Amino acid sequence: MVPMTQPHTTTPSTSTPVTVLGLGDMGRSLARAFVAAGHPTTVWNRSPGKGEDVVALGAVRAASAEEAVRASGLVVVCLVDYDASDAVLEPLVGALEGRVLVNLTSDTPARSRQTAAWAAKHSLAYLDGAVMVPVDVVGSADALVFHSGDRAAYAAHEDTLKALGEPATYLGEDHGLAAAYDMAMLDFFYGAMGGLVHAFALARAEGIDGASLAPYLNTIAGILPPIAELTAVDVDTRTYANDGGNLAMMAASVEHILHTAKGHRLDVSQLAGLKSVTDRAIAEGHGASSWSSIIEVIAAGR
Amino acid sequence: MVPMTQPHTTTPSTSTPVTVLGLGDMGRSLARAFVAAGHPTTVWNRSPGKGEDVVALGAVRAASAEEAVRASGLVVVCLVDYDASDAVLEPLVGALEGRVLVNLTSDTPARSRQTAAWAAKHSLAYLDGAVMVPVDVVGSADALVFHSGDRAAYAAHEDTLKALGEPATYLGEDHGLAAAYDMAMLDFFYGAMGGLVHAFALARAEGIDGASLAPYLNTIAGILPPIAELTAVDVDTRTYANDGGNLAMMAASVEHILHTAKGHRLDVSQLAGLKSVTDRAIAEGHGASSWSSIIEVIAAGR
Repeated sequence: MVPMTQPHTTTPSTSTPVTVLGLGDMGRSLARAFVAAGHPTTVWNRSPGKGEDVVALGAVRAASAEEAVRASGLVVVCLVDYDASDAVLEPLVGALEGRVLVNLTSDTPARSRQTAAWAAKHSLAYLDGAVMVPVDVVGSADALVFHSGDRAAYAAHEDTLKALGEPATYLGEDHGLAAAYDMAMLDFFYGAMGGLVHAFALARAEGIDGASLAPYLNTIAGILPPIAELTAVDVDTRTYANDGGNLAMMAASVEHILHTAKGHRLDVSQLAGLKSVTDRAIAEGHGASSWSSIIEVIAAGR
Repeated sequence: MVPMTQPHTTTPSTSTPVTVLGLGDMGRSLARAFVAAGHPTTVWNRSPGKGEDVVALGAVRAASAEEAVRASGLVVVCLVDYDASDAVLEPLVGALEGRVLVNLTSDTPARSRQTAAWAAKHSLAYLDGAVMVPVDVVGSADALVFHSGDRAAYAAHEDTLKALGEPATYLGEDHGLAAAYDMAMLDFFYGAMGGLVHAFALARAEGIDGASLAPYLNTIAGILPPIAELTAVDVDTRTYANDGGNLAMMAASVEHILHTAKGHRLDVSQLAGLKSVTDRAIAEGHGASSWSSIIEVIAAGR
């Protein structure tokens, strides 16, 4: 066992040529990580002048997208969205033949599957992916990057892709999975981020400054992981066993917050939206069930 | 320094008689904690038959609320809401004279201040409080309990109140503060809890089960504390310096989630409510600011 004090190293057993298409903040960050891991890295960006930093670190700038693609067996694309990546990739079908294409552009699962269908039509080996960390974390030991799609392509390039983050994770053959996990995680994130700012607004209305409240919000963040585990069991089994607080009690608490926030003339759009869900869940008989039974209302239209 | 492996002990230097009014789940838990810490504990509940467990542990059951109050210098009340606690306390004004009343009933800051005004009218020493942990955590070393109101009363009984949880925290002389911190923390909590269940609904619609998603949601929970610290600075200084992702980029991400969720016919009430806030914030020129600038829209009516 490696002592915990020993630094984490990611020296690859073999160095694999990699091409990065797109040198926005994330693309440059990906290129830097490949260079740092010792992989010969070719880069290209549609508009010139971007990526001088990665070239200075040792990446080679190709004169055209096609030249960039032909330089490596592994081609990583990261652009602003799938409209942009589709436009760049379409003329490259011939050059991409026999190589592995990894699309780390961020968009919806549907767009990932659409591009996967295009790749399948042209018999291209295609992986979709999602970078789950900020640009400055890419390449570090704990940078989470998801991949989904062509299993053999992932297996062939897993070691190289680990340059972006040690926990390079393959989620399954459905090309939409990386974006779907990304989206579900962000769904939780933004619910929390809306509640977070609202909490500061409510506190301020009650005469409490942000610096005083923030440490206590860490307490809340700390109890979310075990709750997520319990919720997973509830939604997978659809049992919603009330383990302590039930939905009716918790909805009453939401009502208290709404009442207080409205009293301070705060906007309550997000919380009122949530309350409409708990109201319907209680009306449908879930009051004595666990909080997670609101999934029955959220997914009722399916 | 005490080695970390040594068990935490809370043996009080002196034992103080305490009375607990209300033996619901939380009231019984409070009484158990006082008994466990060696304080002579008197209990009372409006309806008989409740609290046999705490009597078995050594608490003494009083025949009436007045008898219970007269048994101790420190009187803790914990009922379902302030309608209930006001009804119990009103006839006890005479008996409460010269004692310290601590109301750990959960309700809004406004109700706490209302009861504080009643106590002031009768010259009663009054503390309001909020128990921030589930019943089974009360009395443990890390059980967070807030107090606010009469500073001298808190100072006199701080050691005894620590029986409920080591971090017994005094927030200030405004009696509403305990409930206000409680409410702000719950505001964040419920935003996150709504997003959490929605994330599982979205994942399920994409063919991902809860058990597969849950571990990744821990990653999200883990990044919230540093974000809360940055948000506190933003909202206290009203600067909203964009540190990486700006509001416009993040709102586009919210739109992606909404689009995908609607495509699966999921209810999007909570997220659409949040989106209406980000839309207005961007319309008001905060697109290039940090996410926390949405507080300007949330608090615009103040």
